Amino acid sequence: MKLFNYFRSSASFRVRIALALKGLTYEYVPVHLVRAEHRDPAYAGRVGDTLVPSLETDEGHLLVQSMAIIEYLDETHRQPPLLPADALGRAHVRALAQMIACEISPLTNLRVLKHLRNDLMVDESGKDAWYRHWTRNGLTALERQLALLARERAAAGQTASRYCWGDTPTLADCCLVPLIFNAQRFHVDLDGLNLTLAAFKNCMELPAFQNAQPSACPDAEA
Amino acid sequence: MKLFNYFRSSASFRVRIALALKGLTYEYVPVHLVRAEHRDPAYAGRVGDTLVPSLETDEGHLLVQSMAIIEYLDETHRQPPLLPADALGRAHVRALAQMIACEISPLTNLRVLKHLRNDLMVDESGKDAWYRHWTRNGLTALERQLALLARERAAAGQTASRYCWGDTPTLADCCLVPLIFNAQRFHVDLDGLNLTLAAFKNCMELPAFQNAQPSACPDAEA
Repeated sequence: MKLFNYFRSSASFRVRIALALKGLTYEYVPVHLVRAEHRDPAYAGRVGDTLVPSLETDEGHLLVQSMAIIEYLDETHRQPPLLPADALGRAHVRALAQMIACEISPLTNLRVLKHLRNDLMVDESGKDAWYRHWTRNGLTALERQLALLARERAAAGQTASRYCWGDTPTLADCCLVPLIFNAQRFHVDLDGLNLTLAAFKNCMELPAFQNAQPSACPDAEA
Repeated sequence: MKLFNYFRSSASFRVRIALALKGLTYEYVPVHLVRAEHRDPAYAGRVGDTLVPSLETDEGHLLVQSMAIIEYLDETHRQPPLLPADALGRAHVRALAQMIACEISPLTNLRVLKHLRNDLMVDESGKDAWYRHWTRNGLTALERQLALLARERAAAGQTASRYCWGDTPTLADCCLVPLIFNAQRFHVDLDGLNLTLAAFKNCMELPAFQNAQPSACPDAEA
């Protein structure tokens, strides 16, 4: 498999975590977003959304969108599973992942920040305020949802979650960790997000999360 | 089941389509977003993201995030399936859905438009330009992806898709149709999006899509 990705892209980071958790080897192909390499015809001609990450399978199929790629990896390489065995658990995990990937990340990615700066003439501090507003907003919602799910687990006699949901990392954790990395980089207020940060801390104790982080990538920059 | 939703919310519309395609009956509970009913403690206390839609199952579990809800419905009510039977097809369908739900809708929903207006002091025409920019941008990417997938199907000797992927509506179509409704409402340029609009047209020939549309909802306004 080939993973086309950028060390600092949080969507790329999600897939690197999933690949590491599954213990899968792959060719790392850097696509430098700031240098606009994702718009090179050789890449853009094969990848409809012209975004990273994309995954080329051993059969030559090009897959896009990080959550879809992770579900594909989970279906084609079953161990360890990145989704719970029951439909309710899967719904909760997918919802947590989507609260990050559909409600927070899309508002704070590079192309949106560029558009604010270049088309809406928002200055640097306004851009940072935008970043922090949506990230803090989304993380507060995530913390509320984790608290609701903790109550649901307790009521059902289930153990407290060590990760976002349950005792093993899931798709939700693949999305959470890159989000917290970015939040720290942009000095987002993380006060009071106890359940969220506990899950993050427990993830970071695992080699898979450590080895997938931006600073460990071949294309990492200082 | 109870669906908490708003007639004009495109994420709500996605789930209404899925419920209609499955032929499932449910209690329709309107949550008026413009009147901020989603922030009422009775609702917000049960729904971590305080967004619509949310689905209360017959067992009393509250599910959030439209794509997670649709996958739950697909897993618990198998017929007709809203995802292909093979892992590659599922990856393509999920990616198309996510190209809409992660790349377009998050940038154009009510809370973002309000934030642009009230916090960034963007005027009405600037707000409309923002809406059209991200919607057109995302739809152009979607059309490219549909063209790449059409080529992949042809190379594999598969029939041309009638919907986003294949001969039956999928999760991707549940996301596409609400997007096109909104694009038409905001006068987004749809020129040249031939594959996208063909899938939309084929969907709208089905009663499930007709019956789920905003104007058919109990809380519809002119």
